[in-house]
Amino acid sequence: MSVKRHYEREFVRTFFTSPTAVEGEDDSAKMLRSAAQLSGMQAPDVWVPDNEDATAPSMRDEGVENIIEVVSEHGADFPGEIHPRIVWHRDSPGTRYQGFQHMLEIADPDNGAVDHIDGFVVPEVGDIDDWKKADEFITIVENEHGLEEGSLSMSVIVESGEAELAMGDLRAEMGRPANNLERMFLLVDGEVDYTKDMRAMTPTGELPPWPELRHNTSRGASAAGLVAVDGPYDDIRDVEGYNERMVENQAKGMLGIWSLTPGQVVEANKSPLPPKTGSWLLEVGDREIELDAEDGKQVYRGDDVGLESTDDGYVLRVGGEEHELDEDELRQELLDMTAYVPSMDDIVDSMEEFEAAKEAGKGAIAMTQSATLVVDGVEVELQKDRMWDEATYQAAQTPITLFQDVYEHRPDQHEELEEMYGSDVVERATNVGN
Amino acid sequence: MSVKRHYEREFVRTFFTSPTAVEGEDDSAKMLRSAAQLSGMQAPDVWVPDNEDATAPSMRDEGVENIIEVVSEHGADFPGEIHPRIVWHRDSPGTRYQGFQHMLEIADPDNGAVDHIDGFVVPEVGDIDDWKKADEFITIVENEHGLEEGSLSMSVIVESGEAELAMGDLRAEMGRPANNLERMFLLVDGEVDYTKDMRAMTPTGELPPWPELRHNTSRGASAAGLVAVDGPYDDIRDVEGYNERMVENQAKGMLGIWSLTPGQVVEANKSPLPPKTGSWLLEVGDREIELDAEDGKQVYRGDDVGLESTDDGYVLRVGGEEHELDEDELRQELLDMTAYVPSMDDIVDSMEEFEAAKEAGKGAIAMTQSATLVVDGVEVELQKDRMWDEATYQAAQTPITLFQDVYEHRPDQHEELEEMYGSDVVERATNVGN
Amino acid sequence: MSVKRHYEREFVRTFFTSPTAVEGEDDSAKMLRSAAQLSGMQAPDVWVPDNEDATAPSMRDEGVENIIEVVSEHGADFPGEIHPRIVWHRDSPGTRYQGFQHMLEIADPDNGAVDHIDGFVVPEVGDIDDWKKADEFITIVENEHGLEEGSLSMSVIVESGEAELAMGDLRAEMGRPANNLERMFLLVDGEVDYTKDMRAMTPTGELPPWPELRHNTSRGASAAGLVAVDGPYDDIRDVEGYNERMVENQAKGMLGIWSLTPGQVVEANKSPLPPKTGSWLLEVGDREIELDAEDGKQVYRGDDVGLESTDDGYVLRVGGEEHELDEDELRQELLDMTAYVPSMDDIVDSMEEFEAAKEAGKGAIAMTQSATLVVDGVEVELQKDRMWDEATYQAAQTPITLFQDVYEHRPDQHEELEEMYGSDVVERATNVGN
Repeated sequence: MSVKRHYEREFVRTFFTSPTAVEGEDDSAKMLRSAAQLSGMQAPDVWVPDNEDATAPSMRDEGVENIIEVVSEHGADFPGEIHPRIVWHRDSPGTRYQGFQHMLEIADPDNGAVDHIDGFVVPEVGDIDDWKKADEFITIVENEHGLEEGSLSMSVIVESGEAELAMGDLRAEMGRPANNLERMFLLVDGEVDYTKDMRAMTPTGELPPWPELRHNTSRGASAAGLVAVDGPYDDIRDVEGYNERMVENQAKGMLGIWSLTPGQVVEANKSPLPPKTGSWLLEVGDREIELDAEDGKQVYRGDDVGLESTDDGYVLRVGGEEHELDEDELRQELLDMTAYVPSMDDIVDSMEEFEAAKEAGKGAIAMTQSATLVVDGVEVELQKDRMWDEATYQAAQTPITLFQDVYEHRPDQHEELEEMYGSDVVERATNVGN
Repeated sequence: MSVKRHYEREFVRTFFTSPTAVEGEDDSAKMLRSAAQLSGMQAPDVWVPDNEDATAPSMRDEGVENIIEVVSEHGADFPGEIHPRIVWHRDSPGTRYQGFQHMLEIADPDNGAVDHIDGFVVPEVGDIDDWKKADEFITIVENEHGLEEGSLSMSVIVESGEAELAMGDLRAEMGRPANNLERMFLLVDGEVDYTKDMRAMTPTGELPPWPELRHNTSRGASAAGLVAVDGPYDDIRDVEGYNERMVENQAKGMLGIWSLTPGQVVEANKSPLPPKTGSWLLEVGDREIELDAEDGKQVYRGDDVGLESTDDGYVLRVGGEEHELDEDELRQELLDMTAYVPSMDDIVDSMEEFEAAKEAGKGAIAMTQSATLVVDGVEVELQKDRMWDEATYQAAQTPITLFQDVYEHRPDQHEELEEMYGSDVVERATNVGN
Repeated sequence: MSVKRHYEREFVRTFFTSPTAVEGEDDSAKMLRSAAQLSGMQAPDVWVPDNEDATAPSMRDEGVENIIEVVSEHGADFPGEIHPRIVWHRDSPGTRYQGFQHMLEIADPDNGAVDHIDGFVVPEVGDIDDWKKADEFITIVENEHGLEEGSLSMSVIVESGEAELAMGDLRAEMGRPANNLERMFLLVDGEVDYTKDMRAMTPTGELPPWPELRHNTSRGASAAGLVAVDGPYDDIRDVEGYNERMVENQAKGMLGIWSLTPGQVVEANKSPLPPKTGSWLLEVGDREIELDAEDGKQVYRGDDVGLESTDDGYVLRVGGEEHELDEDELRQELLDMTAYVPSMDDIVDSMEEFEAAKEAGKGAIAMTQSATLVVDGVEVELQKDRMWDEATYQAAQTPITLFQDVYEHRPDQHEELEEMYGSDVVERATNVGN
């Protein structure tokens, strides 16, 4: 690992927030209590009792008591890490002082919760000097309560232009003797407040996609040895959209995402894991269509691509234009239009194959994937080659390393992982590359 | 407001440049003179007598005299701010000295213009030390002429890689005692020269879109409490393209844009204001099609989406693919494909409703928008819910805050605003959220 | 030129790597030897004997000897620059020391190669302090061997988040007295290792596009007076994809790219040069279709756009929607949908025309391009106007300046350039703008 990480989990898939105190319920800690008892795929890697935006301002002192009570009772058994979000604002000393007091209370050993608290989440941070103020309060909390310096981690919500810029300074600032920023853990984007802070607007009120923010957060995490997490996806019903967002994020190196419901937690826990079975994609314009696997053949059923066999060869129709091609040209064209999504099993296979080749003194080998593609009843045999060298091997390893991190730290998910992949694949995946 | 702003206008929609002296005219100040007398929607928020690129080098001394004459005469009545652009170049001390001399002359109280001059626009700046040189000259100008230090604002054109990077340093540098960078006002992208400086090229000679530059400018403005403005849109005839660019910019938090003609000023003054009436969009692939409102129904007339009612339910055709759906699935699919663009009235309504709910102790409420969608004669009832909490409320507030800033500072536009929205909506919009 | 460049080539189109020692061959230097004898369009602007990833770790000492032998023999005649890549890693002092020893050996004047070595390529750099370590080793190499300080250039591979951030510091750090970073030459993206470092992943294992990285590299090069080069394009067969990538890069100001084969070198040497003949594009949705030039007319043959002449005017069908238009509206619509790609000849013409106009005291002139567009047999006359002012002129100059840089430094390509363009165009292009 290029940068030293000062925490246990190398990967965080899920960041799940729960209100700490809900008004008008018999038990204001009800949501906290039910979240604390989640396990398996429904339990997040990081659980965040949220004493900030999810909880009404008037309920936040009660929220602190609820955190203490629920974490004391259930914390030992909770399968993920626990990081309460306290109140903070770069522009409000009063809010910052309140956040400090809440941390002092939550972390008091006499209250019994701190053994199960892994760190705090600090929202609305500003420039790097503001991050240092939060770090300093945590240092004082540790000192007052006789906790080891640096034992409580600090995660921030990046929801201002200042904080986005601060991520560029973090690596250099983390080494300075006057702070304990080595306690940093998660960089979490908060797109709703970021949108407000940037004064951005869209016709429909939808959040802007903010690709640069997500890149900069992922880069900041990479440069400082931290973990990047995307913000909440509001449209809870839209499972497809949530999954698309995660695939986009993964291509940016942002492998974690906020979850608002246990249902979202399940999706987000699974998303970065390779699929059980491989599949073929056909790229038409900007869209990628998954082909139907039938009797070992890959069948395209849409109207946007047509294929006809003629006396001279083939006519391929794509997006309203026809191309006359001979067999080689057709195969080449279709190779360019198709892509293969490898399964967990495929990835492990390729890694093992490359390791064996390396052992035998080879620096690069070709991995081949074959398929019979069917368009309008016409069948074409395709073979996709990809060269693997050391760099390909290492880049392909990311989902496997993530899987291994999950397997090590989340025994509560073993059963579901074995149901998903079969125990043979799980075993090989836990061992490959080590 | 998170960051202290040292100027009056919180929002700038329009940055309109006029040549200061045109050769071969009877009156070389003709264009300046006509621009100075614009008012209402044709008058920009910031007017820039342009003594740099828009004016031939040989005419620039005369340009300074013209600025003085025209601003002395018309400045008091001009409804926007006045910020002349002087000459400057990070690589040319001679040009910088010329710019200094021009500022000295324009700001001389004996010449009568400086009372109506709000600041200067400095083009072709380099790294932050270059910005400080311009700032220092303005400090000397103020000192020589007995003007209050910091009373003249400074805006820059970001048209080099160095300047783009400098925006990341600005927040920290603005606090230092040896400069007066607190006078900073606008960060304006200059894509033509930026393209040259970056040595970029496109096959057709079109400007690259530079999304990262615009993001970084908007972020720099946000972090330092300044206002971000996009560069000129050359194709004056292309009103649709200009508007699309502005919508893109708004999603980046860049709410202002350069205007080259009074016609562009009108478009750009209106673009960030919410529409008079709401509308429904259907998203097909990458395109968003506005539906026709007819008898209270939302009608789709294109060919890319088809809908048929069958014995078992419905067949929805999208982009060449058919989906058999029951009524619930159809409604869900169409909900995902549609979006509502709220009117000014809708936004004010939602804000008022949320304020009332908050007063009553609720932290979040659902806002519902209903419509009857018609595709191929088949009618479907849709209900779109959106949860509003404090953060949604505050993010939604941006267009309203902008409207209020306009209403406060631009009485010359009151009449047109009332014509656009009706006086009832205008009144409610000026009061909501305060 | 805004920023002082400390090297000869102002533009680098091609960065071609060759393994320095291949195991199991009679002559382990075979690939090096053949690369060293390339010339004309097959020879890169920068040739990189690659003693890092392309060469097995066990062969790297032999690789150093091969570099010395082959460069001593062929270096004097090689038409491009020669920059060996040595081993380096920000996290491994052992690797860094090995890289230092290899540089010492390669640059030893007794070995006869250093006269033809222009500099070194340093991979896997980290933050700016890590860059300084490599710079310091090169300074020591120069000092030990009695070479002029700064005479060996240094290029880096940007393949980590730290290195991406370091590019933002480079301009300020290059001026400091304790380093010789003025020797910097190329900033080269390395997307495979960058993807690993960022822990990014895609379903198909394809590399993410990393647009922000490429922007930041191009900007870093611009701000520090360096040259930006994109990383390798693995799919060697996919010539179209390679060319599309280069066009994308050019719009970012990144005019150079890695080449893995002499075939890729040819493509990449030609890509940034303007075409021999101009062409018209029709933009349909997100795609740009090149029209067929026939008898001086521009013919569209696809199905996505249809045109019919009716009694009242025209019906234009675009993407499934029909528009009834009169002749003016049709012409306007088609103007918005079309673009012209100028030839080398066109660009030179426009520049000459603008220079003449400027001489005659005009600051801006309109350049017109006419065409007869044919859709479904219906002919429409189009005239595209574009205003040229000083800024347009300078931005348009980039491909010409690049051409002139190539013409000056690559006499071995003169013949092919004359074959491509004709000697008249070549002569005018070498003289315009000077």
